[in-house]
Amino acid sequence: MKIDFIAIGNELLNGKITDLNTHYLAKKLCDMNLTLRKVHIIGDNPNDFAGALAEATSEADIIITSGGLGPTKDDITKNMLAAYFRKELKFSQDAQDIAQKHYDRSSKVFDQERADYHNIPQDFTPIFNPVGYAPGLSYNFGEKIIFATPGVPSEFQAMLTHEILPSLALSSEIIHHLTIKTWDIAEAPLFNSICPTLWDELASFGEVSSLPQILNVDIGIRLIEKNQSKIDSKIQRIKKIINNSPLKEYVWHIGPESIEEVIIKEATEKKLTLGFAESCTGGLLAHKLTNVPGSSAVFWGSITSYSNEVKINCLQVLEGTLSENGAVSKETALEMALGAKKNLNVDIAITTSGIAGPGGGSIEKPVGTIAIGVAGPKTKTSEILNLKGDRLILKRRFAEAALFRMLREIRRS
Amino acid sequence: MKIDFIAIGNELLNGKITDLNTHYLAKKLCDMNLTLRKVHIIGDNPNDFAGALAEATSEADIIITSGGLGPTKDDITKNMLAAYFRKELKFSQDAQDIAQKHYDRSSKVFDQERADYHNIPQDFTPIFNPVGYAPGLSYNFGEKIIFATPGVPSEFQAMLTHEILPSLALSSEIIHHLTIKTWDIAEAPLFNSICPTLWDELASFGEVSSLPQILNVDIGIRLIEKNQSKIDSKIQRIKKIINNSPLKEYVWHIGPESIEEVIIKEATEKKLTLGFAESCTGGLLAHKLTNVPGSSAVFWGSITSYSNEVKINCLQVLEGTLSENGAVSKETALEMALGAKKNLNVDIAITTSGIAGPGGGSIEKPVGTIAIGVAGPKTKTSEILNLKGDRLILKRRFAEAALFRMLREIRRS
Repeated sequence: MKIDFIAIGNELLNGKITDLNTHYLAKKLCDMNLTLRKVHIIGDNPNDFAGALAEATSEADIIITSGGLGPTKDDITKNMLAAYFRKELKFSQDAQDIAQKHYDRSSKVFDQERADYHNIPQDFTPIFNPVGYAPGLSYNFGEKIIFATPGVPSEFQAMLTHEILPSLALSSEIIHHLTIKTWDIAEAPLFNSICPTLWDELASFGEVSSLPQILNVDIGIRLIEKNQSKIDSKIQRIKKIINNSPLKEYVWHIGPESIEEVIIKEATEKKLTLGFAESCTGGLLAHKLTNVPGSSAVFWGSITSYSNEVKINCLQVLEGTLSENGAVSKETALEMALGAKKNLNVDIAITTSGIAGPGGGSIEKPVGTIAIGVAGPKTKTSEILNLKGDRLILKRRFAEAALFRMLREIRRS
Repeated sequence: MKIDFIAIGNELLNGKITDLNTHYLAKKLCDMNLTLRKVHIIGDNPNDFAGALAEATSEADIIITSGGLGPTKDDITKNMLAAYFRKELKFSQDAQDIAQKHYDRSSKVFDQERADYHNIPQDFTPIFNPVGYAPGLSYNFGEKIIFATPGVPSEFQAMLTHEILPSLALSSEIIHHLTIKTWDIAEAPLFNSICPTLWDELASFGEVSSLPQILNVDIGIRLIEKNQSKIDSKIQRIKKIINNSPLKEYVWHIGPESIEEVIIKEATEKKLTLGFAESCTGGLLAHKLTNVPGSSAVFWGSITSYSNEVKINCLQVLEGTLSENGAVSKETALEMALGAKKNLNVDIAITTSGIAGPGGGSIEKPVGTIAIGVAGPKTKTSEILNLKGDRLILKRRFAEAALFRMLREIRRS
């Protein structure tokens, strides 16, 4: 079964917004072992829509469109679909009921004069929108089906996941994406010198891919089997191969979980409480940990100390330490860690003080320099790293390096 | 002049990677007043390539492909181009010289056996690759031109910016994207009841689009003029229309800047220092402000107080306030704000305490409930809001609501 996706909207083609729906759809379809044949990104233009639809309907079995179902004048998908399939727009009580539900959720009143969610092309079926006003649409013609969905990512994703994909789940095969997550090693030495036969060994289980991350490399293996026990057996065999290979010491996790999810899980198991003092990461570390549901069980808090005054007042960094060594120094990072451990009353505190740029760099301490402090049950240490990138990339790299150190500290505690 | 973009690669359609090139290209072309008509994202499949190329060459003047120029087995763009245009692959000294340059830069030796960068379709011209091995390609047929570029974003972007776009820069027109940013109003009432004639009025200046954001609506207008003074004059006239319309009170900014950029700019102008105490936003507020270069001039810091203990120890929230009203209450949010203002020694402190879910909700205080506290030079206040979404969306909505209040407080200080 082949699927074409048609993303509609001038804003996708003029650089105003980044298309987030293609990646979401691609991942979901891949997980279901369904083939995304082609993505068409077009503007709000009936001629281009007709061209894309003609190609899609001739090559694919399922066509999913996104965008153009809202209440404003540039929302013309319903009109384009009606024109293409030679249908009239007609009142649909079901469509009105779907829109009405969201007006009720939002405690607002639906007014047919202001938004025509209630009119849809004849013979089309409205699709429930779990998080927004506009109903989706589906239409069967011959063996094929077209689905029209809203373009707003939250609405697209909810409608896709809850309403559309369940109706496409035909395959009896189970797909499992196994991810092997490494640290402290780059892609080329990993596959070329340290484990030169690993790629081929893993490839005997399924399609292998090397996925460079912000500071590390993930190895992906796509496993396809008839049932879960066969998947589980393959995973066990792969884990055995890893454990007997020199890769073992570079693997921090096998599975889909992010570093912050692994941190919360292992800290919860060990009943270790966690905190940060953040300067150059500016809140990103706390933001990442608190993205994990259940993080409040072990994450106590963080002191974002962007100014030296806050480092002194809220973390008890000594003025002399700052004046002698600067804020970006092993000495300051360590005092921040000790202050955060004490004031947040946590078992493990990790701290960052660095230069994210674009200003603030010097020859001795260029942009990208970071001091990371660690204060744990037995550890009191700090170190300097030099990373590369612009401000936003550096913040992410700084954060990743700090989270790696937090996980290490949890494991040794 | 219309441009079609064909992005080639199985990895774009199976969710393995996110396509970054479309957005980059779209923005660049828009800035040059060139029209990106359609983006085709296809796999490494000659049939789909031929289909996309047939459609693109019939509708567009310029076709740019990306991907499939590398040395591995799945890199088949050259073969597909040769087959489509009925050319043979032939040795090109120019192509070899381009690849050779990058081998020299990387201190490696080019080996014709291992990579066939030197063979290109007859009558095609190789394009210099400033940052990688694979030469790009260009081919004129009739009035049309096809460019083939590498898919790796750094190589794509460098070749596009330095080699391809300069050859397309024909227009002397200036494009300006004006953005009108609103708050406290939804899309439908804005255009339908409050300002029913606004869309048409704005459309007389250029293409209008409505861009829903996380908590608000942006209105975009694309202005095209021969020179900057005509652009400036249009902007002045649009501002006058806004100022005389009921929309005025809902506009918080006209321009491309984000809420955090406007906050840093206006706080810097007024010499107001800023801080947060974050519970449910968990660091996101500080992360967003510190993404802005220069934020360290006014942003002093933030106390992420995820546990009650940190609220008590680091913000001096009273235990009685927490036990009587709960952490998610106007009373706690206000005490957090007063504690943050004092301990961070800032002019304005904004605080968040809410329930991001999935756990922690109750009938009285469901997931999505947030208390926001404001402590400014003259203000001591707090309020409760109820927002919708999953954990990650709620964190973003909570943060946006808090940043709006920070900007309001800066303006009234």
